[in-house]
Amino acid sequence: MSLLIVGTVAFDGIETPFGKVDKILGGSATYIGISASYFNNASNLISVVGGDFIEKNITLLKDHNIDCKGLTIMQNEKTFFWSGKYHSNMNQRDTIETQLNVLEKFDPTIPEDYQDCKYLMLANLMPSIQLKAIKRLSNNPKLIVTDTMNYWMDNCMDDLLLVIAKTNVLIINDEEALQLSQKNTLDEAAAKILTMGPSFLIIKKGADGALLFKENEVFTCPPFSVEKCIDPTGAGDTFAGAFIGHLNHENSLSFESMKVGVVKACAMASFCVEDFGVNNIIYKDVTELQNRIKHLQSKIIY
Amino acid sequence: MSLLIVGTVAFDGIETPFGKVDKILGGSATYIGISASYFNNASNLISVVGGDFIEKNITLLKDHNIDCKGLTIMQNEKTFFWSGKYHSNMNQRDTIETQLNVLEKFDPTIPEDYQDCKYLMLANLMPSIQLKAIKRLSNNPKLIVTDTMNYWMDNCMDDLLLVIAKTNVLIINDEEALQLSQKNTLDEAAAKILTMGPSFLIIKKGADGALLFKENEVFTCPPFSVEKCIDPTGAGDTFAGAFIGHLNHENSLSFESMKVGVVKACAMASFCVEDFGVNNIIYKDVTELQNRIKHLQSKIIY
Repeated sequence: MSLLIVGTVAFDGIETPFGKVDKILGGSATYIGISASYFNNASNLISVVGGDFIEKNITLLKDHNIDCKGLTIMQNEKTFFWSGKYHSNMNQRDTIETQLNVLEKFDPTIPEDYQDCKYLMLANLMPSIQLKAIKRLSNNPKLIVTDTMNYWMDNCMDDLLLVIAKTNVLIINDEEALQLSQKNTLDEAAAKILTMGPSFLIIKKGADGALLFKENEVFTCPPFSVEKCIDPTGAGDTFAGAFIGHLNHENSLSFESMKVGVVKACAMASFCVEDFGVNNIIYKDVTELQNRIKHLQSKIIY
Repeated sequence: MSLLIVGTVAFDGIETPFGKVDKILGGSATYIGISASYFNNASNLISVVGGDFIEKNITLLKDHNIDCKGLTIMQNEKTFFWSGKYHSNMNQRDTIETQLNVLEKFDPTIPEDYQDCKYLMLANLMPSIQLKAIKRLSNNPKLIVTDTMNYWMDNCMDDLLLVIAKTNVLIINDEEALQLSQKNTLDEAAAKILTMGPSFLIIKKGADGALLFKENEVFTCPPFSVEKCIDPTGAGDTFAGAFIGHLNHENSLSFESMKVGVVKACAMASFCVEDFGVNNIIYKDVTELQNRIKHLQSKIIY
C-alpha cells in the first residue's frame, strides 16, 4: 500500500529565542517523509529542488525510506527558501523572507510507478499544485490527507476550497480552523469544515495537543509536554507524517485507527520541537518514541 | 471490481406524441443498472422504494445482474413518482407531478459488502444524498461518475458544487452545461467545469451525440440515429450506465477507454428512446447492440 507525499523540500533560516540557523534542510514534504518513516516501510515523494540542493540531503531522505524518483532537480534554479523568526512564546512567528524559486515553475508529474498511490498526503504547498497532483493520478487514492496554512487561505481561497472538497482528512491548527470556517469556537469550526468536503478534521493546538473530529464525535489527544521547545518549525508536518504513516502501515481508515494515528502524531511531533529543523527526528532510536506513545496512551480514555 | 449505483428507483407517468403510460418502472438507478448489465458482470444498488413497489420489478432488476441488498423497502410509504409530458420536438418536456414520497426520508446506508466499491455511479438524485453516499464509503472509490440535472442546479447548488468537486467524470446535457458554467458556448462551459473538480466532462447532446472533454482535448461521438424516437425518458441514464459499465468491466480509466465507453453509451441510449420506459433496454439480445456500436465506431476518427 503506497504512500505518496506531495509537498516542499526547502532550505529554511530560523531564529528562535534559543538560537539561529541559516539554510538548513526544511520543507513540508521533508518533515512528513522523515516522520512517516518511523511508522511505514516506504514513501514516494513528489517535489522540486534547485541545483543548489545538497546531495547529502537526498541521501538523508533516502535513508528514511523516501523514494526520490519524483524529486525534480532544476539545475539552473534555486531551492525554495523560507526564513522566519519566532517570538518568545513560540506560538507566533514572523516570516522574514520567502523565495519561491523552483516552486514558481513547478509542474508536478507523477512517475508511472507512483500511480498506484493508495494514500495521498498533500503537504503544505500552493493549492494549485496540490490540485494538479490529485488530477494527475489516474485513480482516486483510497485516502487524501491535506495540510495547509493561513497563507493559502489569505491568497488562494478558491483553489484551496476545491482541494478541501476533495480531501478526506484535513489537518490544520486552531487559528486556521477559525479562519477557514469563519466561526468563533473550534466546535463550530469543525462542524462547518465537515460540511466542506472532509469526513475527518484534525485541529492541532500546538503545546495543547490535538482534536480529531468526525460527524457528531470528537477525540481529544493530550500533548506530550517537552522540557524545552527550541524550534516549532515543522512540528505540524511531523505530526501529519506520523498520522498518515500509521494509517498507511495499518491500511485501515477506521476512526479507531485514526485515533491511534493522532496519538502517534502527537508523540512524534514532540521530538521535532526539541531541536532546530529536522535534527531531532532523523536517525531516531525508536525506543524513546515508543515510550512517548505509551505515555500518551496511558493518559487517554478511548 | 465492484460498481455501486446510487440513485432512484421510481414509478413514472409519461406522455409523448406517441402515447401515454401510467406508473411504469423508472428511476435513474433503474435505467443505469439495466444498461450497465450489458457491459459488466454485476452492479450493487443503493436506493429506496415504498410498499407499493412490485416484486416483479425487483426480479427484473436482479435479472439484469443488479444486487438489491441495498434497496431499502419502506413498507408504509409510497415509491417516488414522477410524471411528465413531452412536446412535439421531444427536446422539451413539462414535469406534471413529482411525489418525492420515500425519497424525503431516505438516509442511505452502505451494506458492508458494498464497501469495497471501486466504481461509484452517482445517478441523478438529490445532491445531499449523493454526498452522504460518498461520505459513508470508508475508502474513496477509484472513480466517481456523477449525473445530475437542472432541477438541482436551481434548488441545491451548494450541495451540488460539493458533489461536483468530488466527481471525476461529470455527465450532463448541453443546456445543463451552460447553466452550470454560466457560459455561452459548450467549449467555454467545458473549460470552466473542468476547473470545478472533474477531470472529465461528458456533454450529452440528445439526438446529436455526445462530447467527452478533458483538459485541452475533446472527443466527439456521433449519434446513432433511430427511425422513431418514442420516449426520451431515461436515455441519459441509459447512456451513463453503459459508460460506467464499460469502464468497470475494463477496469481502465484511460481516456481511450472513456472514448470507447462514450461510443457504447450512445449506442445503448439509442435503444432506450425507441419505446416507453425501459421496454426496449430489458432482456435485450446483444447482437443488435454490437451492430450499433460497430456502426458508430465506423463513423469515428479516433
